[in-house]
Amino acid sequence: MMVLVTYDVNTETPAGKSRLRKVAKECVNYGTRVQNSVFECVLDNAQFLLLKSKLCSMIDEEVDSLRFYHLGNSHKAKVEHVGLCKGINVEEPLLF
Amino acid sequence: MMVLVTYDVNTETPAGKSRLRKVAKECVNYGTRVQNSVFECVLDNAQFLLLKSKLCSMIDEEVDSLRFYHLGNSHKAKVEHVGLCKGINVEEPLLF
Repeated sequence: MMVLVTYDVNTETPAGKSRLRKVAKECVNYGTRVQNSVFECVLDNAQFLLLKSKLCSMIDEEVDSLRFYHLGNSHKAKVEHVGLCKGINVEEPLLF
Repeated sequence: MMVLVTYDVNTETPAGKSRLRKVAKECVNYGTRVQNSVFECVLDNAQFLLLKSKLCSMIDEEVDSLRFYHLGNSHKAKVEHVGLCKGINVEEPLLF
């Protein structure tokens, strides 16, 4: 299933900047960065719960926020993109 | 239907900062800001096409990006939030 992870991390403090780096780094292990704070992750439920618990342990819930959107399995038809494309689609073959 | 609008606007130039303000301002007219660059918009198809064309005309496709996620009508069950909550749910009654 595809889970969209979006986050806002308050970077007004050095600690906030560090939280942001950690959150982004963790998300890279699970999916594709499609925008600065938007990741598309193809996960089973166990992987999702693990990712969620890791991210929740990294943020400061008073000033940061995480959102998880469950897009299901037929996610491709649900997404439209315009403009600069950051990510590569991990489900498509890499042609060299 | 619920459409999630996420965007990255390159703000390295004054023009970029202006584009960012415009995009955010337009999205506010159509939905709820749930994170800095994430809006949840309850729209019919005509409204979506109008919003999309307006936003596309505002960004610089070389350096900015827009993503639209169609979450359908049963969107509430698909979203999980952790941490600081920015938006109010426009579909729920406002209690004074």
